[in-house]
Amino acid sequence: MEKVTLTLAEAYTLARQVLRGNGFSEAHACVLARNVTDGERDGCPSHGLWRLLGIVNTLRKGKVSPDAEPTITDHAPAIVKADAGGGFSLLAFERALPLLIEKARHNGIAALAINRCVHFSALFADVEPLTQAGLVGLATTPSHAWVAPAGGSAPLFGTNPIAFGWPRGDKSPFIFDMATSAAARGEIQLHQRAGKALPEGWGIDSKGNPTTDAQAVLNGAMLTFGGYKGSALAAMVELLAGPLIGDMTSMESLAWDDGAGGLPYGGELVLALDPARFLGTDAVAHLARAETLFAAMQRQGARLPGERRYQARQHAGEYGITITRSLYEEIAALDCKVPGA
Amino acid sequence: MEKVTLTLAEAYTLARQVLRGNGFSEAHACVLARNVTDGERDGCPSHGLWRLLGIVNTLRKGKVSPDAEPTITDHAPAIVKADAGGGFSLLAFERALPLLIEKARHNGIAALAINRCVHFSALFADVEPLTQAGLVGLATTPSHAWVAPAGGSAPLFGTNPIAFGWPRGDKSPFIFDMATSAAARGEIQLHQRAGKALPEGWGIDSKGNPTTDAQAVLNGAMLTFGGYKGSALAAMVELLAGPLIGDMTSMESLAWDDGAGGLPYGGELVLALDPARFLGTDAVAHLARAETLFAAMQRQGARLPGERRYQARQHAGEYGITITRSLYEEIAALDCKVPGA
Repeated sequence: MEKVTLTLAEAYTLARQVLRGNGFSEAHACVLARNVTDGERDGCPSHGLWRLLGIVNTLRKGKVSPDAEPTITDHAPAIVKADAGGGFSLLAFERALPLLIEKARHNGIAALAINRCVHFSALFADVEPLTQAGLVGLATTPSHAWVAPAGGSAPLFGTNPIAFGWPRGDKSPFIFDMATSAAARGEIQLHQRAGKALPEGWGIDSKGNPTTDAQAVLNGAMLTFGGYKGSALAAMVELLAGPLIGDMTSMESLAWDDGAGGLPYGGELVLALDPARFLGTDAVAHLARAETLFAAMQRQGARLPGERRYQARQHAGEYGITITRSLYEEIAALDCKVPGA
Repeated sequence: MEKVTLTLAEAYTLARQVLRGNGFSEAHACVLARNVTDGERDGCPSHGLWRLLGIVNTLRKGKVSPDAEPTITDHAPAIVKADAGGGFSLLAFERALPLLIEKARHNGIAALAINRCVHFSALFADVEPLTQAGLVGLATTPSHAWVAPAGGSAPLFGTNPIAFGWPRGDKSPFIFDMATSAAARGEIQLHQRAGKALPEGWGIDSKGNPTTDAQAVLNGAMLTFGGYKGSALAAMVELLAGPLIGDMTSMESLAWDDGAGGLPYGGELVLALDPARFLGTDAVAHLARAETLFAAMQRQGARLPGERRYQARQHAGEYGITITRSLYEEIAALDCKVPGA
């Protein structure tokens, strides 16, 4: 398959140009372009440049605002609210971040509730900046109702990711970002396109029976990871980043989409905790306990989450990123001034 | 097998008497007795009256203070600290709870860090009181290093439970309390005593090979639930309820125990979030979204976590609790004034 290699700057410029050309404001285009370039750079093509297709599709379907200016509110001593106004989550996050950090440092812990946002991006991007500020971060968001609860047989939960980040000073942070579904929806779609059977345990058909047929799962329901425990966590995500912050559950998001095939719409909850505020002058000694834990993990051959990502990041900084020519051409073809043309 | 039935009041009185007789202060004895009685009442014998054996054993080994008075500190606007002083966690939790609730209501979110506590109790008991105050609760604690990280082969993490509670007004709260290990350590011990093979995936032997032999797993390592995702969560628990709050990881706890066979020693982190503070006047409408989610779960046959527990609770209120005569006699025999006699 023919490939195209781009420097990170070229990839960013392409993405930004396509987004601007489709009507996104400069502020949204920049933060979106950076996000998809970072995903590609970090070896996560599922959150990389191909996301531009879905972003533009969502815009053309009228399911996202191209230029909403987020409204940031100092809602309570330890709560920041960010109303994304129907735009993508990323700009709202970026604009709310300084106040979230300030509140976490002052209070020890603080929460950011992003509302009315369209969501496509990996939560990794929303906890990494917290770790860079020396904070512990936790982020979660519902999606569309695609996943059956344990003991049930029909879609109800979203893929409901949970991301967690731990700061490590000069070292790359400890960050995981995982769906509470057994697999990402994109992985099931890739199996379906390739005509490949799914691994056991990823989903059920529309009658609730286990199946390895990708199309049957897309018509039926995905399953959570880890059985009833993963299902409990998926429910927790619905509650924390839905009703708690006054926003939609995954089934409400899918109903709102009304068959348009757009991206999930609703809320995101981000928590920030400040080790320095918890620990005071003992922070250095206690953070060293974490390093001892990480070293013990690595000594027995367990990877730290994020390791592969940081390796890919370093490689991409030196050698650029490579995508298929057909994806490159699909992206370039998005660059028109007339949506839907 | 011969059985003994006790009213809840009788069970509580027995437990309290045994604890007082072994030297626990009135304050500790009361809260411990209530906790093990509640566990038995709720149909969780693994956190019920038989725990008295481990509690007294830990005291006789010199691994818990019978009378430490917790020190509660208003550490930061959104952080309460409770130094358990080497006593069990429960009294520290009970004493810190009012300030945690006050801070959550004022700030929207608050954290309680319990330090230097010995831990045996289910975290269910530490999130239920938060739901009764109308708050969302999250609690977590490391234990002893018994569980291998995904990709590793030796014990490093504890069974590291995560408990989450959601308030439901007049209804019983939505609460889950789950180990991040594939099974509870007690379940493996029960299989070992009964000479039964373990289900696949619970553990590995001391060479890192999968095994269904309970003794081999007790000598080797338990596994997390849900593969690398459960392992990531287990690591998160180590970090949040260990270094973040200036306390031990599970491997430090096991090293501190130094072969005595005592209960885990270290910290616990409890978060409380106030829906009323997040939502203001819209709280009722948004909390109704959660009820819609629960109804949709139940309609498709998925249980809400906690359901069985509340059924058992109701039954025990009417008919009392039943334990084996041998357990009853073991507990009664603990009632001596001379520790170690």
